[in-house]
Amino acid sequence: MPLNETPTIPQGEPILHWLALADALKPGIREQEQLPLNCIKARANPAHPMRFESQAACSIQELEQRSIRAGDSVIIDFGGHRTGYLSFKLRATGREADAPVRLRLVFGEVLNDVASPLYPYSAWLSQAWLPEEIITVDDIPQDVRVPRRHAFRFVLLEVIATSKEFAVQVHKVRAHAVTSAPATFNELPTQVPDWVRRVDEVSIATLRDCMQTCFEDGPRRARRLWIGDLRLQAMTSYRVYGNEVDMQLVKRCLYLFAGLPREDGLVNACVYERPRPTYANIVALDYSALYAVVLCEYVVASGDHEAGLDLWPVARRQLELLLQHVGPDGLFSDPGDVWIFIDWADELERSSAMQGVLLFSLQKLLALAQILGLNDEVVQWKVLAQQMQTQARAQYWDTDQQLFVSGEGGQVSCASQAWLVLAGVAPDDLLGAAAVRKAMERADSVKPVTPYLYHYLVEALHSCGDRAGATALLKHYWGGMAELGADTFWEAYNPKDPLHSPYGDSHANSYCHAWSCTPAFFFRETGFFNVL
Amino acid sequence: MPLNETPTIPQGEPILHWLALADALKPGIREQEQLPLNCIKARANPAHPMRFESQAACSIQELEQRSIRAGDSVIIDFGGHRTGYLSFKLRATGREADAPVRLRLVFGEVLNDVASPLYPYSAWLSQAWLPEEIITVDDIPQDVRVPRRHAFRFVLLEVIATSKEFAVQVHKVRAHAVTSAPATFNELPTQVPDWVRRVDEVSIATLRDCMQTCFEDGPRRARRLWIGDLRLQAMTSYRVYGNEVDMQLVKRCLYLFAGLPREDGLVNACVYERPRPTYANIVALDYSALYAVVLCEYVVASGDHEAGLDLWPVARRQLELLLQHVGPDGLFSDPGDVWIFIDWADELERSSAMQGVLLFSLQKLLALAQILGLNDEVVQWKVLAQQMQTQARAQYWDTDQQLFVSGEGGQVSCASQAWLVLAGVAPDDLLGAAAVRKAMERADSVKPVTPYLYHYLVEALHSCGDRAGATALLKHYWGGMAELGADTFWEAYNPKDPLHSPYGDSHANSYCHAWSCTPAFFFRETGFFNVL
Repeated sequence: MPLNETPTIPQGEPILHWLALADALKPGIREQEQLPLNCIKARANPAHPMRFESQAACSIQELEQRSIRAGDSVIIDFGGHRTGYLSFKLRATGREADAPVRLRLVFGEVLNDVASPLYPYSAWLSQAWLPEEIITVDDIPQDVRVPRRHAFRFVLLEVIATSKEFAVQVHKVRAHAVTSAPATFNELPTQVPDWVRRVDEVSIATLRDCMQTCFEDGPRRARRLWIGDLRLQAMTSYRVYGNEVDMQLVKRCLYLFAGLPREDGLVNACVYERPRPTYANIVALDYSALYAVVLCEYVVASGDHEAGLDLWPVARRQLELLLQHVGPDGLFSDPGDVWIFIDWADELERSSAMQGVLLFSLQKLLALAQILGLNDEVVQWKVLAQQMQTQARAQYWDTDQQLFVSGEGGQVSCASQAWLVLAGVAPDDLLGAAAVRKAMERADSVKPVTPYLYHYLVEALHSCGDRAGATALLKHYWGGMAELGADTFWEAYNPKDPLHSPYGDSHANSYCHAWSCTPAFFFRETGFFNVL
Repeated sequence: MPLNETPTIPQGEPILHWLALADALKPGIREQEQLPLNCIKARANPAHPMRFESQAACSIQELEQRSIRAGDSVIIDFGGHRTGYLSFKLRATGREADAPVRLRLVFGEVLNDVASPLYPYSAWLSQAWLPEEIITVDDIPQDVRVPRRHAFRFVLLEVIATSKEFAVQVHKVRAHAVTSAPATFNELPTQVPDWVRRVDEVSIATLRDCMQTCFEDGPRRARRLWIGDLRLQAMTSYRVYGNEVDMQLVKRCLYLFAGLPREDGLVNACVYERPRPTYANIVALDYSALYAVVLCEYVVASGDHEAGLDLWPVARRQLELLLQHVGPDGLFSDPGDVWIFIDWADELERSSAMQGVLLFSLQKLLALAQILGLNDEVVQWKVLAQQMQTQARAQYWDTDQQLFVSGEGGQVSCASQAWLVLAGVAPDDLLGAAAVRKAMERADSVKPVTPYLYHYLVEALHSCGDRAGATALLKHYWGGMAELGADTFWEAYNPKDPLHSPYGDSHANSYCHAWSCTPAFFFRETGFFNVL
C-alpha cells in the first residue's frame, strides 16, 4: 500500500475504542504501609552542595511522647523515597482538646524541601505544585490520612494552632507507598561494585515511584505521561521487570496516546489521565517521532503483534508527517513553528539532533515493519532512510574536527553527537564514540542539562560498543546524584550546581523523575558488566 | 428513702448502657441542596455598626462565565445562614489545566467575616476555629466538596494559584445544608407584626442550624453540647417542633450527660460527641443545677416517665451535691473553687443569682418528683426550698431600692433580678417585674452581656405576667440583631457595639448560637401575642 493510502486516522476526536482498551489495561495499585525512621533536624551548611545536612533529632518513640505546641514543628524522615500517602493519629495532651488542630505539612523529596522556606516562591511553574498542605483536624483524638498523594522522604509537620488548653502528640505516623510496579525485579549479579548497586537501587526506586496508573514523568509535579519519558521508562522496565505488568502498562500508554490524536495527526507530547483521558495541547516533533520507537520496542519486548498491527498506522503516520520536513536533500529542516525538545538548553541548535531523532525513529519503524510483515508499506522509506543517513554524514560530520556540527554556525553540541551517533551516521563506532566523548570534554560545546539527554549520550556510547565511556559517564552523572544522597534520580541535575532549577526555584524541581531511571537499563544490558 | 440512701451513681466511669441508649437515639441528618443568590462586594462603611455593607456584584450566571486568575477572589452570597457543606465544580479556561489549583475559602456567618482580614488574629480562643480552608484541587475539571462542615451565609473564594497557562471558572456552586430538625414547624398566626415574623424566622434558623446529632451550642465554633444551651434549645424546640424528633434529641442529650458522670458526681457543663462521647473537664455549678430543669421540662413535654425515672437519680444527685453549699441560713455560699457561669460579665457578683438558679432548679426537681410519684424522696427538700426562698428574700431583697442585691457591696445586677424573680423570691409579680426593669435601666447596675442572660430577663418578666416588658426587651435585643441583618442570632451582642467580641476578636465570635434561639419560644407562649 503506497503512503498516500495509509488508513485514515480520525483527527482531533478521541478514538473511543482505543481509550476503552487503555482503560481496561489500567493496572492495580499496590499499597504498602511503611514506618518512619526517626525525626531529624536540618543543619544549614553553606559549604555543602545541598546546603543542608540531616542530623538525628529523636526517635519515633520519643516523638510519640512529645507534646507539640502551636508554633512547633518536627521533621520526620521515612528513609528513602516513595509516592504515596501520609497517615497519623493526633492526640491531645494537657487536657482534652477543646478546639480543632490546624497543621501545616510539607512533603520533601530532598532535605532542602523541608529545610528551606517554600516562600517567597520564585519559579515560573505554578505555586500550586508546592508540596504543602494546610489541614484542620476536628474531634481529637483523630486518625488523619492526608487525602492528596505526595512524593516524599521527609515530612515537615508544623502545628499552626491548637487552643491554649492543649498540645498534641503525633502517633502512628505511617507512609502508604503506592505503585503499579511489581514487588520483585530482576536482581543484579551479587558481585557488582557498591556504586553500581546504589545507583541501581535509586534507578529502580525512580522507576517504581513513577509507575502508577500510567508512566508518570514525576510523581511530585506534572504527573503526566510524556512520550519522551515513556520510552526511557519502558525500555528500563523491560529489563528490570520484563513481565506482564510493565508490558501492559506500556501498552496502555501507547493506546492513550493513540486514542487522543491531534487534528494535525501528530501524537501529543503528553496526555492527562485524569479526570478523564485528554490531551495536553503540546506537541514536540522529536517526541512524536519517538512513538514509533516505543511501539517497536514494545512489540520486540512483548511479542504482541496484535497491538503492533493495531497501532502501526499511528506510528507510521508520525513519520509520514515528520518526513514532510525532510527536503529532497535528505535533511530535516526545522519548520520553526513547532517545539523540538531534545534538551532544555536554550542555546542548542537542534536541526542535526532532530535529523538523528527522525532517522533513529525511521529505522525503528522499518524494523517494526519487518517484524509485522509490513515491508511492502515502507519500501520507499528504506531508500529514504539510507539517503538521510548519507546526507547527514556528508552535511553534519566535520572531518577536520571529527565531530558533528549543527546549523549555519557549525555549533558543536552533545545533543548532535548523541542522536546522530545513535542513528548510525558516524563514519564508524570508534569515531562515533570519540565524537561523543570529545563534545563532552570541549569547553565550547553545548552541554546536556537534563538526565534525558545524558541518557542518550550513554546510549550512543553504548551503541558504539564504548562500554568504558558509557560507564564512566553514567558513574559521573548518576553516581554524582547518588553521592549527594539522592534516593531517586532527579529531573534536573547540574553536577556543578546541584540545586540549580530550570524553573527558577529549586522547590519547583521534581526529585524523582522518570527520564532519570535508565541506569538500571544499562546495568542489565549484555556486556555492560565487563567494564564496571 | 432518705437523702443519704440515694442510689449510688458510678463516679467518673462512663455508664455504658446510658451511652448506648444515647447512641441509639442519634437522629438522622437531613441534607438540602441550596443555590447561591449572587456575588457581592463588601463596601467598607465606618459609620455602619457592622462596618461593611453588601453590594450586588454580579449574578451567578455571570460568575460562571468569569475567568478567575490567581490573586482574584469572589464573595458568594447564599442568602441566609445554614450549617453545611460547600460544593462546586472547577473548570479551566484559556487552555487545559496543566497544574493543580490552590484555593483559599473563608466561610462567613456575617459579612464582616469575609470582608475584613482574618489575620492578625487577636482572640484568645484557638485560631484553628477560624472558618478558613486552603485546598488544592488536582485534575481539573473537578468536582469539589469541601470535606469539613461550616456555618455560613457567605463564601469568600480566592484563587491562590493556577499556572500562568490557565484561569478557572467556578460552576455549580451549592450549599448542602444539614440539620436534624424537622422540615416543618408550628407556624405563628398570620397577623403578627413584621418584626415578630422576622425575629421568629431568625430564631428558628438559629435553632435549626444548631440541631445536629446533638444540640450544639454553635455550629461554627465549640460545636458542643452544654447544659445551659440545652435548656434553652429544648424549651424552644418543644414549642417550635414539639414532635418525636426534638423530644428524642433532648432525651439523647440527657443520656449523654448522665452517661459521662464526673468523679465528684456533678454532671459536666459540656460533653463532646465525637470522636466518641467524652466529657470536657469543665463544671459550672449553675449548669449542673439546670440538669434537673431540663429533665423536668422534658418529662412534661414528652410524657416520658420511663426516662424520667431512669435519670431521676442523676438530677437528684446534682441538687444533693449543690445544696451542700447552702448553709443553715438557707443561703448559697460560693465555694470559690468551681466555676459559676450565670453570664460572661467579669464584675458580676454571682451569689444571689446562684441562689436563684439553685432554688429554681430545686423547684423543678420537686415538680418532677410530683409527676413521677417520688414525693417521698424529697420531703425534706420541700421544707428547704421554702426556707431558701424566705431567706433569700430577707437577705437579698433591698426594700429601700426595691431591688435584689448581691454580695457584701450590695451589687445590683440584672442577673440577680432575673434569677431570684424566676425563683419566686420577689415579694410579688409586680415588684419582681419592676425590679428587672429597674436593673436594666439603672446606670450603675451590672448589665447582661450574653443573649443567655437576656433570655432569663425576658423569662423572669414573662413569669411575672409582664408581657409588655418582656416583649419590649425581646424587641430591643433580638429585634436589634435582626435589624443589623442577623440571619441567625449571635453568641454575643452588645447593642452599643455589635461587633464587640468577648474573645478579643470578632472573627472568634459565633453568629449562630443556641442560647439565642428563645424568641420563638416566647412568641408561642400563651398570652404573649396580646401585647405584640
